[in-house]
Amino acid sequence: MAASETELIERFFRDIGAQRTDVALGIGDDAALLRAPAHCELVLTTDALVEGVHFLAGASAHSLGYRALAVNLSDVAAMGASPAWALLSLNLPAIDEPWLTEFARGLGGLARMHGVALVGGNLSRGPLSITLQLAGLAPIGTALRRNTAVAGELLYVSGTLGDAAAAHALRSGALRATPADAAFLRARFEYPTPRTELGQALRDLASACIDISDGLYADLSRVLGVSGCGAVIDVQRLPASVALRNTCGATAWQTALSGGEDYELCFSVPPQRATAVDELAATLRQPLTCIGVLRREPGIELRTANAVTQFSHPGYDHFHC
Amino acid sequence: MAASETELIERFFRDIGAQRTDVALGIGDDAALLRAPAHCELVLTTDALVEGVHFLAGASAHSLGYRALAVNLSDVAAMGASPAWALLSLNLPAIDEPWLTEFARGLGGLARMHGVALVGGNLSRGPLSITLQLAGLAPIGTALRRNTAVAGELLYVSGTLGDAAAAHALRSGALRATPADAAFLRARFEYPTPRTELGQALRDLASACIDISDGLYADLSRVLGVSGCGAVIDVQRLPASVALRNTCGATAWQTALSGGEDYELCFSVPPQRATAVDELAATLRQPLTCIGVLRREPGIELRTANAVTQFSHPGYDHFHC
Repeated sequence: MAASETELIERFFRDIGAQRTDVALGIGDDAALLRAPAHCELVLTTDALVEGVHFLAGASAHSLGYRALAVNLSDVAAMGASPAWALLSLNLPAIDEPWLTEFARGLGGLARMHGVALVGGNLSRGPLSITLQLAGLAPIGTALRRNTAVAGELLYVSGTLGDAAAAHALRSGALRATPADAAFLRARFEYPTPRTELGQALRDLASACIDISDGLYADLSRVLGVSGCGAVIDVQRLPASVALRNTCGATAWQTALSGGEDYELCFSVPPQRATAVDELAATLRQPLTCIGVLRREPGIELRTANAVTQFSHPGYDHFHC
Repeated sequence: MAASETELIERFFRDIGAQRTDVALGIGDDAALLRAPAHCELVLTTDALVEGVHFLAGASAHSLGYRALAVNLSDVAAMGASPAWALLSLNLPAIDEPWLTEFARGLGGLARMHGVALVGGNLSRGPLSITLQLAGLAPIGTALRRNTAVAGELLYVSGTLGDAAAAHALRSGALRATPADAAFLRARFEYPTPRTELGQALRDLASACIDISDGLYADLSRVLGVSGCGAVIDVQRLPASVALRNTCGATAWQTALSGGEDYELCFSVPPQRATAVDELAATLRQPLTCIGVLRREPGIELRTANAVTQFSHPGYDHFHC
């Protein structure tokens, strides 16, 4: 088979995402040309999935295409921005047309759902890794940051936590689950839901926001570190799915606290806006759970009904040794 | 050694590029926040360097940092845009602090030279590969494209061609050179000069432009294909360095025609602007050589003083088999 990089990009990736009128020039030239509205700031992020690190050999190409975009959508959501344009850089050991077809389906489907145009790409031979760059837009001065959390605010998380970590443990054999619970947990890992709509709604409510990629404990620690405050978390309030509770029992809260790759949002809100958060949860039909409060003293204190709990798992970091 | 991804990015990559007032938020949050001028289009591109494909194991980290940005600067230059903000996605087999230091020096030095701020990054464990995304700016409607070349226009290239390909051939032992020539050719491969200033100047002169990454023949073929015209090239006019001519002798033109990774610009200009191109060459103090003319008939015809020459090398493509 003879197929050039250009031909492959044309065949598999042209027009798989959303069609946007602000794309003056998409795939096919040295670079893409985009028109951002004058009242908006540009939000730029990149994230990569590497075989053997973020996924195992033989992982579903459809899920990989989906996740490569989802992890970047999650970053843009955490900034409160609206996603717009993506670039894909794909290293492939060899051309595998069925794989590329499924990968593009996973990526394209999610891109269309979130209004993202795929405007450029780069295909290279090499060990399988997927790097995606996503640009989003937010009205100037409104984007959410990490370093603006304030002592006294309430701390919230979206959705449920720990499901993706449990899926990892199932796959490695460290955990067992019923077929139904296993399927649920696996789907939460393979197809995380980027909180795009929630992130944008939080621009008017939250003081600070981060997406939970490395685990609540690790990611919250980053927010607290740069904001100069601490937090008290009620571990009994950590939102855990039925499947996680069925599977992990009394230790579900530990998985919810430390497990990475759920791509939920963690955000802080002034107490007087608590009702507005509840209303937002009802509107979006997704749980937004108050898990604690921010305070002046640094660090994270974990509370159960009767005691302060110790916890030492720092969360997931590819380079922590 | 314990060092998290966040700490490594902070330590090695914060502030290595240019400081720009349009960066509202750089490295350290879920995404960067940038402010593009209202009268500009955004230019987005990505390119990757993969070990074993674009460079050999043991390649200079300084050169890799430089080249990872240079290949993207070249794409932005080919659009006639001004480079602005870069994101780095680096997959590393292990943390190697001297390597990271040199890599950041190579990247940061070139970034500062071209006014590029490094605004975000992603570090992951994995086989060595470097993906860089670059955003540039061009006044709305002025960016140069590939598909706008017109029959009758003159065809130009910047600099000299074939040097990087000769450096490849030297390294593999397929070619021999004097130490001085070898050093020159190797430097042209390891430290290609992105034609940033030239690209922006060409917005007022050129009808179409592309950067030569896969070889003049292959890249020009793309321009001609999408513009619906052909070209006649005078192979005796192909600009070759003294080192290339010393090293390749009578076949230097073939290397100049097909060799990739020189990152020079190839552009077409209406004949009445030929004098302006000469003046630009004098201003920029770099050769801009007219190598032929565009015509209606498709394809590339190669001419020597006395004959039409056949040529079958399609240029470099990672996936051409």
